Amino acid sequence: MTDVMDYILRRRSIRAYQPREVEPEKLELLLRAAMAAPTACNSQPWEFIVVTDREVLAELTGVLYAGHYNPAAAIAVLGNTRIANNSAARQFWVQDCSAAAENMLIAAAGMGLGAVWIGVYPMPSVIKLVTEVLHIPEEVTPLCVIYVGYPAEEKPPRTQYDPYRVYWQRYEPRKRRAKVKNAKYL
Amino acid sequence: MTDVMDYILRRRSIRAYQPREVEPEKLELLLRAAMAAPTACNSQPWEFIVVTDREVLAELTGVLYAGHYNPAAAIAVLGNTRIANNSAARQFWVQDCSAAAENMLIAAAGMGLGAVWIGVYPMPSVIKLVTEVLHIPEEVTPLCVIYVGYPAEEKPPRTQYDPYRVYWQRYEPRKRRAKVKNAKYL
Repeated sequence: MTDVMDYILRRRSIRAYQPREVEPEKLELLLRAAMAAPTACNSQPWEFIVVTDREVLAELTGVLYAGHYNPAAAIAVLGNTRIANNSAARQFWVQDCSAAAENMLIAAAGMGLGAVWIGVYPMPSVIKLVTEVLHIPEEVTPLCVIYVGYPAEEKPPRTQYDPYRVYWQRYEPRKRRAKVKNAKYL
Repeated sequence: MTDVMDYILRRRSIRAYQPREVEPEKLELLLRAAMAAPTACNSQPWEFIVVTDREVLAELTGVLYAGHYNPAAAIAVLGNTRIANNSAARQFWVQDCSAAAENMLIAAAGMGLGAVWIGVYPMPSVIKLVTEVLHIPEEVTPLCVIYVGYPAEEKPPRTQYDPYRVYWQRYEPRKRRAKVKNAKYL
């Protein structure tokens, strides 16, 4: 039996992909995982665009300056407070859509796919570019783009668990620790 | 073998708990799951407060108007851009901490625990109350509180997958569908 922790620790940011396509059934499973995430007052403030067309993919990866990789598919996670079930979405759509994105990453890793979260919101210039490429209307906001493909790199499972980040019962101020150097893109 | 989708669909919002305590090893596993989440540029903008003391728990659940339940433990997820590894945290801490929270929910369900996400940020009044109860300093922001305990209610696995929320290649405006009535607290 695969333990739930194995699945969670198996999720790593995979940025190199095989040219092989991702089966439509697997893409649908990722969407089923996304929409299993909790949302504030069950508002479900989300929409998704699945991009598999090579030309649209090239356009999209081209405008994402932190995402010049070669995924077989990309799933844009969008916040749409108008389609949401209630007004809780206005305050919580970022958190709700983030939970959905994380579910897709865990599901992808558990199905032998590689994936990475490319941030879009709240960077105005990146939002604008993604919006243009994907024809997203003004009232809908792209939160992030999840790249997906069969992995062409391997990373071992891990957590970055650090007991220094944990308090018990109440917060206690501590002496600040030196920041990790060159911590980008681990 | 338990499929990754089983674990993801097993996560439901559980709001009734047995009086039984949660083992410290399980609480640590939840924190290991949380800190396995991805963060923008690996900034890790998070801290956590684990509350198991009955008096502090009563205070905390007392001030959370959407959280008058009886968990055996609560884990507050905090954003701290000063302790983060880099400045990406300033823009992405909400998303990063949300992914960590979702990881805890999935891990909890996979370990036979019940859990629910109680929203705090961005509601100023709730932030203030949680901050006071947990002695959180001004530069640290509570995003949410995850309640944890052995479940006293059962909910079947599910996704709220809806193909209507999915577009292929690019967005296409559609006629709006009626909102779900009474969708709160499903």
